[in-house]
Amino acid sequence: MDIVLLGSGNVATHLGRALVDAGYRIMQVYSPTQAHAAALAGTVNAQAIDDVTGIATNADLYIIAVKDDVLAQVVAQLPVSLKGMVVHTAGSVAMDVLAGHAGKYGVLYPVQTFSKAKAVDFSVVPIAVEASDPITYTALAGLAGNLSNRVFPCDSKQRLSLHVAAVFACNFSNHLYAIGADILREHGLDFDLIRPLILETAEKVMVHQPKDVQTGPAVRHDIGTMQKHLVLLEDEAELAELYKTLSERIGKDA
Amino acid sequence: MDIVLLGSGNVATHLGRALVDAGYRIMQVYSPTQAHAAALAGTVNAQAIDDVTGIATNADLYIIAVKDDVLAQVVAQLPVSLKGMVVHTAGSVAMDVLAGHAGKYGVLYPVQTFSKAKAVDFSVVPIAVEASDPITYTALAGLAGNLSNRVFPCDSKQRLSLHVAAVFACNFSNHLYAIGADILREHGLDFDLIRPLILETAEKVMVHQPKDVQTGPAVRHDIGTMQKHLVLLEDEAELAELYKTLSERIGKDA
Repeated sequence: MDIVLLGSGNVATHLGRALVDAGYRIMQVYSPTQAHAAALAGTVNAQAIDDVTGIATNADLYIIAVKDDVLAQVVAQLPVSLKGMVVHTAGSVAMDVLAGHAGKYGVLYPVQTFSKAKAVDFSVVPIAVEASDPITYTALAGLAGNLSNRVFPCDSKQRLSLHVAAVFACNFSNHLYAIGADILREHGLDFDLIRPLILETAEKVMVHQPKDVQTGPAVRHDIGTMQKHLVLLEDEAELAELYKTLSERIGKDA
Repeated sequence: MDIVLLGSGNVATHLGRALVDAGYRIMQVYSPTQAHAAALAGTVNAQAIDDVTGIATNADLYIIAVKDDVLAQVVAQLPVSLKGMVVHTAGSVAMDVLAGHAGKYGVLYPVQTFSKAKAVDFSVVPIAVEASDPITYTALAGLAGNLSNRVFPCDSKQRLSLHVAAVFACNFSNHLYAIGADILREHGLDFDLIRPLILETAEKVMVHQPKDVQTGPAVRHDIGTMQKHLVLLEDEAELAELYKTLSERIGKDA
């Protein structure tokens, strides 16, 4: 199967490498920035292009792995004559964005956060698959199954909910880590002191449901401790408010 | 060094085992519930007692490892004649709670979350140490150094800030995992789908500062995606509000 990869960011990079490792051929890598296209094309042995109108029209599959908010713009530039399947990789964009631009289309959404600097074992990354028709679904799920052991069907609404869940559990958690780092710095302490605790907290939910392993003063209804924490935060009204909101939610669940 | 351990919960259990592994003798384990005292006493080869007035008065060290909100109550029951050092293990309680109850006193606060079911490698758990005087500090830091490679001095105010930082980074993150699980369940998806993402998010900050690895629509100022997420949350006003608060904070940092 010959593939054209549109995008050169973290998802495109990790997906492109995983595809090559699985024996697929990447014909071209597109990026509006030629240097970015060339950097990824070099590692996957493909041609680098910086103009969408220059893409090969005889590929079997076009994978658009660009930021969610520029996806529609890239789709609009696609040649109308494409016979291959066209898919995107975005969590928050409905499959329909591709309707009218290709006969066979779909979505391959890898549920993971990718950094260029860090290798990811794609075989354990869940991949959400959606397709315009059953034959295309079979083709896409087959390809995804060659990359990962965790392929599952997921419609556009479910995928959006998955994206929202990931924002809460991951993007927002990372921000809470940042708040922790800020509080420590203000008191002359290093973020490194809570790193083991952060990792342990994440590892616990690998085998438990989060509600079953909730700890801390809020779940114990330990009002005295929460009051001391709020005194410490008294000069930071926004943080104190966030502390109260989250503690109340945890207290209600308990 | 002969030790009396007051408490039979997660901290007492892990700390007691680590002390025995490091060659210390636990003379007694106290819990108001005899069965709890007996359970831990059995694993550390100590006597179980359920009455504070029955504690040995000739121990070198008394470790009070009980919930923060019952600590003062246990302290108040201590015999007045204790010659040994008395310490507590609470993050949110100032060392002064022990003043007047012992000549030499201090705090050993292990910065980790403990579950009875899960073994913890104590050698990498940071231990915050505070003491009433330099000689006691040296004794406590020496003991802590036999359990862990990460012992550091930490006064009561700093320890409270460490506790607040841990609540944000860990207790509240766990609640965000729970929110993610709820959203997935409502859309017929399994929490297991975001487990790899949660672990990766935590692992990233083991080597980076959280602000340097923030991802998601808020840090990209991707208003379109955030809008779609808020539409998905439109029936859950409280969650939508939390989404907005956290996204705004992330956006301001970016």
